Amino acid sequence: MKNFLKITLLATAILSSINFSQAQQSTIKEDFKPSVLNQPQQEYPMVNSQGYARFKIVAPAADSVRVSLGLGGRGGTKLAKTEDGSWMGTTEGPLDEGFHYYNVRIDGGKFNDPGTLNYYGSVRWESGIEIPAQDEDFYALKNVPHGNVQQILFPSPSTGTSRRAFVYTPPGYEKGKGKYPVLYLQHGWGEDETAWMSQGRANLIIDNLIAEGKIKPFIIVNTYGMTNEVKWGKIREFKIEPFQTVLVDELIPFVDANFRTIAKKEQRAMAGLSMGGMETKTITLNKPDVFAYYGLLSGGTYASTDFKDKPQPKLIFLSCGSKERPDGVRKAGEELKTTGFNAVSYVSEGTAHEFQTWRRSLLQMAPLLFK
Amino acid sequence: MKNFLKITLLATAILSSINFSQAQQSTIKEDFKPSVLNQPQQEYPMVNSQGYARFKIVAPAADSVRVSLGLGGRGGTKLAKTEDGSWMGTTEGPLDEGFHYYNVRIDGGKFNDPGTLNYYGSVRWESGIEIPAQDEDFYALKNVPHGNVQQILFPSPSTGTSRRAFVYTPPGYEKGKGKYPVLYLQHGWGEDETAWMSQGRANLIIDNLIAEGKIKPFIIVNTYGMTNEVKWGKIREFKIEPFQTVLVDELIPFVDANFRTIAKKEQRAMAGLSMGGMETKTITLNKPDVFAYYGLLSGGTYASTDFKDKPQPKLIFLSCGSKERPDGVRKAGEELKTTGFNAVSYVSEGTAHEFQTWRRSLLQMAPLLFK
Repeated sequence: MKNFLKITLLATAILSSINFSQAQQSTIKEDFKPSVLNQPQQEYPMVNSQGYARFKIVAPAADSVRVSLGLGGRGGTKLAKTEDGSWMGTTEGPLDEGFHYYNVRIDGGKFNDPGTLNYYGSVRWESGIEIPAQDEDFYALKNVPHGNVQQILFPSPSTGTSRRAFVYTPPGYEKGKGKYPVLYLQHGWGEDETAWMSQGRANLIIDNLIAEGKIKPFIIVNTYGMTNEVKWGKIREFKIEPFQTVLVDELIPFVDANFRTIAKKEQRAMAGLSMGGMETKTITLNKPDVFAYYGLLSGGTYASTDFKDKPQPKLIFLSCGSKERPDGVRKAGEELKTTGFNAVSYVSEGTAHEFQTWRRSLLQMAPLLFK
Repeated sequence: MKNFLKITLLATAILSSINFSQAQQSTIKEDFKPSVLNQPQQEYPMVNSQGYARFKIVAPAADSVRVSLGLGGRGGTKLAKTEDGSWMGTTEGPLDEGFHYYNVRIDGGKFNDPGTLNYYGSVRWESGIEIPAQDEDFYALKNVPHGNVQQILFPSPSTGTSRRAFVYTPPGYEKGKGKYPVLYLQHGWGEDETAWMSQGRANLIIDNLIAEGKIKPFIIVNTYGMTNEVKWGKIREFKIEPFQTVLVDELIPFVDANFRTIAKKEQRAMAGLSMGGMETKTITLNKPDVFAYYGLLSGGTYASTDFKDKPQPKLIFLSCGSKERPDGVRKAGEELKTTGFNAVSYVSEGTAHEFQTWRRSLLQMAPLLFK
């Protein structure tokens, strides 16, 4: 039986690869290179200059291997068995530029691609792949002075634990004496405090902006925003109070006590992506004396009526990808501007609810902060 | 054919689980809890109070699932299919206390357990599991003042890149003015600069020692030690010069310029585990004016003859696990002491060439440094 299985699979694989070649050989450029997020010494997954991704998974005795990325409908990209026992496949079309999470279905189980590094998204550590982008220079690691990213463990009496945050201090912080403004920057649902520095490359974006003289240096703080656990689809059950307490009553005082911050509202910003935008909106409106700059990145909008009986923020930044609902963001920005707010809306061209939208949003928002 | 396959697998699974129960039900305590290194909300893998590990992998259509850990010979622990389509199994015996890397073989491919966090070892990101240890209190996250762990990117002209290091600064560093000694602490083969803080918990070990008043605070620096790539088994082809240049000519001056260090030999230590011990031995002997405290953790030994025409270090610390070759470490320590060196040897009871040995070694070594 095993031999019969093997022969059937081999035949299927050969047929698949013929179909594959016929359909695609005229359009796909064979200039594939390893994704920059691969584990050391790993050749696959690869990406080409058009944004196609090619996967290779070794699982000689598997019956079915499928990658969650791609244009092949909800099932992603089906891999075909090759003669050496590995499974290979290329996405049906080019992927959006930038970072994507993905996973691999092997015989019905969900695993990560052993070729790539892992990133925390969807409440699990997922595989990551990076599609080269036309504007990738702004988040590249360059030979410029670099800030440091440090893990801090701050006491949180309200949750009874030491909680983790990451603090980006700009180049020169260690040896200098100056004080800095602070941006509290939140991740999305199912992500954690590693997201912005790791998949978002926030530290490199700010390093590069500072090196080009486009912004004045500031500190960034990321912490975990899902203080109470909420399942996907039940986001309406999310209660802001536990996280608001951790952020406003515990983390901010700790950061102000342990770093050289300018500890006042006019030098403090809060922004977040997706669920982090929802948190930002709620907390900035609940605590109007704490933050002066507000940013919602694919995370909803403010309306002028939200500020009835409240002080005006110094900036409202709204953004999303053009593949999301850009009209809502644009209209909200217009409404706020018309009613006298300093509001800026930004739409990232050709990107969806993914990190390339948020990297670009940070690039656009950073020069507007702490003016 | 598929049904036939399914029935065969089911029968095998039932047989396996019967054998399994008969063999083990009398000895294994059913007090299994999720490993502390599990991904959020993940129940498996689990560990019990005796040190047994139990695994559960969802892959309904797989033919074979095997975990690399366990006493089941070189093949690890074979999992058996259960009625709900997942694969389960328990190690044949208790595992050593502390941290273990592992991976999962599914139909001939090597993957990580989707239940656990990943740790970089064996030149890949591997699954990690933590077996509760009698002495785990010394590396526990406690309600004490915590130092910070920060990622730095330092310029490295010799390799043409910005290279990453992690710097632990002790509690109080941010707001204080004092200067600190520095321990340069290296990972083993196939690991990287994340190992000591992540699987090693070096920051928590030092936080706890400081809180108990057992050591004076110092800085720890970890960087990547495989500047030239060497395959496993070819360790003799390793050339020290590229890494020695990065460490001594690039990293140390950068750390001394950017952190409040006491920048002199008498306040600088180097230690490493396994391959990092080999690096420590070679570099300390090549550069006798740079470090005054030397530590080899499961990483070889010094002999008094190594110091012919060289200054004596202030400390030589040698260690390994009792399941390694403790006699070599003990004898080398005696030989050094007899010939007038300040040498200390330590053997970690009941552990092998794994991180529990090195956590305990750091605990023993830290109070001896910078006297």
